[in-house]
Amino acid sequence: MSASSDTPLASSDLLQRTDYQGVTTLTLNQPERFNALSEEMLAALQGALDDIAQDDKVRCVVLAANGKAFCAGHDLKQMRANPEKAYYQALFARCGAVMQAIVNLPVPVIAKVQGIATAAGCQLVASCDLAVAASSARFAVSGINVGLFCSTPAVALSRNVSRKRAMEMLLTGEFISASQAADWGLINRVAEEGELDRTVEALTASICAKSAVAVRTGKAMFARQLAMPLEEAYAFAGETMACNMLADDVAEGIDAFIEKRPPQWRHR
Amino acid sequence: MSASSDTPLASSDLLQRTDYQGVTTLTLNQPERFNALSEEMLAALQGALDDIAQDDKVRCVVLAANGKAFCAGHDLKQMRANPEKAYYQALFARCGAVMQAIVNLPVPVIAKVQGIATAAGCQLVASCDLAVAASSARFAVSGINVGLFCSTPAVALSRNVSRKRAMEMLLTGEFISASQAADWGLINRVAEEGELDRTVEALTASICAKSAVAVRTGKAMFARQLAMPLEEAYAFAGETMACNMLADDVAEGIDAFIEKRPPQWRHR
Amino acid sequence: MSASSDTPLASSDLLQRTDYQGVTTLTLNQPERFNALSEEMLAALQGALDDIAQDDKVRCVVLAANGKAFCAGHDLKQMRANPEKAYYQALFARCGAVMQAIVNLPVPVIAKVQGIATAAGCQLVASCDLAVAASSARFAVSGINVGLFCSTPAVALSRNVSRKRAMEMLLTGEFISASQAADWGLINRVAEEGELDRTVEALTASICAKSAVAVRTGKAMFARQLAMPLEEAYAFAGETMACNMLADDVAEGIDAFIEKRPPQWRHR
Repeated sequence: MSASSDTPLASSDLLQRTDYQGVTTLTLNQPERFNALSEEMLAALQGALDDIAQDDKVRCVVLAANGKAFCAGHDLKQMRANPEKAYYQALFARCGAVMQAIVNLPVPVIAKVQGIATAAGCQLVASCDLAVAASSARFAVSGINVGLFCSTPAVALSRNVSRKRAMEMLLTGEFISASQAADWGLINRVAEEGELDRTVEALTASICAKSAVAVRTGKAMFARQLAMPLEEAYAFAGETMACNMLADDVAEGIDAFIEKRPPQWRHR
Repeated sequence: MSASSDTPLASSDLLQRTDYQGVTTLTLNQPERFNALSEEMLAALQGALDDIAQDDKVRCVVLAANGKAFCAGHDLKQMRANPEKAYYQALFARCGAVMQAIVNLPVPVIAKVQGIATAAGCQLVASCDLAVAASSARFAVSGINVGLFCSTPAVALSRNVSRKRAMEMLLTGEFISASQAADWGLINRVAEEGELDRTVEALTASICAKSAVAVRTGKAMFARQLAMPLEEAYAFAGETMACNMLADDVAEGIDAFIEKRPPQWRHR
Repeated sequence: MSASSDTPLASSDLLQRTDYQGVTTLTLNQPERFNALSEEMLAALQGALDDIAQDDKVRCVVLAANGKAFCAGHDLKQMRANPEKAYYQALFARCGAVMQAIVNLPVPVIAKVQGIATAAGCQLVASCDLAVAASSARFAVSGINVGLFCSTPAVALSRNVSRKRAMEMLLTGEFISASQAADWGLINRVAEEGELDRTVEALTASICAKSAVAVRTGKAMFARQLAMPLEEAYAFAGETMACNMLADDVAEGIDAFIEKRPPQWRHR
């Protein structure tokens, strides 16, 4: 949660987008507000995610942040300045839509975390497909400290870590370390001091070396099948895999494997 | 499972209730029967939980036990003395109702475990929101050792630990240590020798320092959203959070945060 | 995934079955093809599982493999030789049916893993109730390396390990070690060098020492209740447990427990 300065920023500055060799990096850029998820920041994120969803050249997305904090959650000053239920309903609906846009994006999203990720900032990390954090990063769902249970962050958090651990974080508001977060499954990897860029790049390079068809197939099916009963999940996954088999890239991939040479993907 | 003495106890002695500064402690008090969940103990638990559900002064509940064991599960002698299907159906329905009353209570419940927690005793721990155990505590779902698969304990256990671990415990009946239980997510914290009281008090103090509205909001929404598909969970959580925002405590909490002072909750 | 020699084998040789004191061992026996799940191997597995489902003498099943690899997944050469959607649909339906036959078998299935378990081979391990691996064993869902996202393996894997870990394995195709697999909950135990047989035997001996009624009750209810909402799961588990209480073995088990002697099961 953030309660820092009110200096307005142009929305184009709020969130930076760079594209390099298939990796699109979205960088939260309000470090002086700890990259709080203000209305404006949420709108910028939603817009960027909508664009990426239509962009066939994107292979994967890195969600990063400038400054000392990854993201401190909602903008508390802005929330206090609009004390109406309809405002809050719209705000949380918008926030939930951004989180679901990450889940539903056609390509994987990797959180790159330094400093703190609190409340809806922790929810952002939980909503990504993969997450890497600096060893000094810390995570909390700290709304409870201001009287506001982190209900929407709980949705994402409780789908990443086991329920007693999620409940402890939600009720106490206490921070966990990056290594604790990795141990509990909230993040994938902890980067040693100075190795955050390199650790994220190892993941993006691994994903970009794969067939784009296969990566998109996986992203599209993973969360969906997890919500299904087993028999339905197998029927859906089997059909998905049969379609995937018909892609040119699979023929090339299997032939390359059999011939012990690197594959030449058509869909990069 | 318990098969100890048959000395009857007044139901008022079976389960002790103390209330202190918002913390209600329920203490299983049949140590000579390893606090078995007899009909009488289940009735006492159900009654106490029903009372607490109506009691606005309770901030959180500690479920504790007197004696060497936390709880050894059902009372095997009593079960053998009533060899009728209707009796067993009623007994397991009553036990399931107690476990669900813990899940549905308006405030968090913390298990405080020493000695053994077996079968329905392990289920009690799994059903609580949080759990702390002495480092010497041990956990098992050991019905399989007497020919009775721990089916109802499996419901709670398998929602706390991953399926192969739950299945191993259920099929072998073997004990796991407190540190194993913490590693697997069945409990939150392991207290060193002589530190069990202090470790539980740290948790209750943390919860009592929060706004009661926020804590009750969280308890009411957590398990419910976890059972929903993602989109429905976000809609529910967003509405819950918008309502929570309208509480006096949140205004005070955010103002205190912005002004860098401790909050003064109205709802304590 | 396997792309080795094409030497045909009689289907009776593909999968070996041995029965010893209630333990049925199914051994994948195409080591020169890394025990790939060809059409023939899947048919052999389905047949053997169908037989076991009708066999009251089986107490538990060990799924083992001959050679350096446990199982390398589908037979890539065979798949490439049949480039038709209908073929792939039938193949993945057959594979999903085998995996579900393991889940739905009336007795527990223990994977005994050496070498590599990749793609559908890793799915086999995930589909078993319990799993033990040699310390040198490694696990991957590596279809992504040939352009084929492991969609059906993802179904089983994501029900065993947390979602970010599953997604990392699926997107990168990288191997995890046996100790990592144990830490993540994909397997139960890691056997030191030369101790794989003994470690599996300790588990099968533990299960065979239990009442067959109890073990079969547990296997039949575990996965089913896990897919239900809490209230429905408790109603189902309570009814299951009441029925289990009426088995002769439970009377004997409880009496033996009370009399502090070993039980004499009727149903072995």
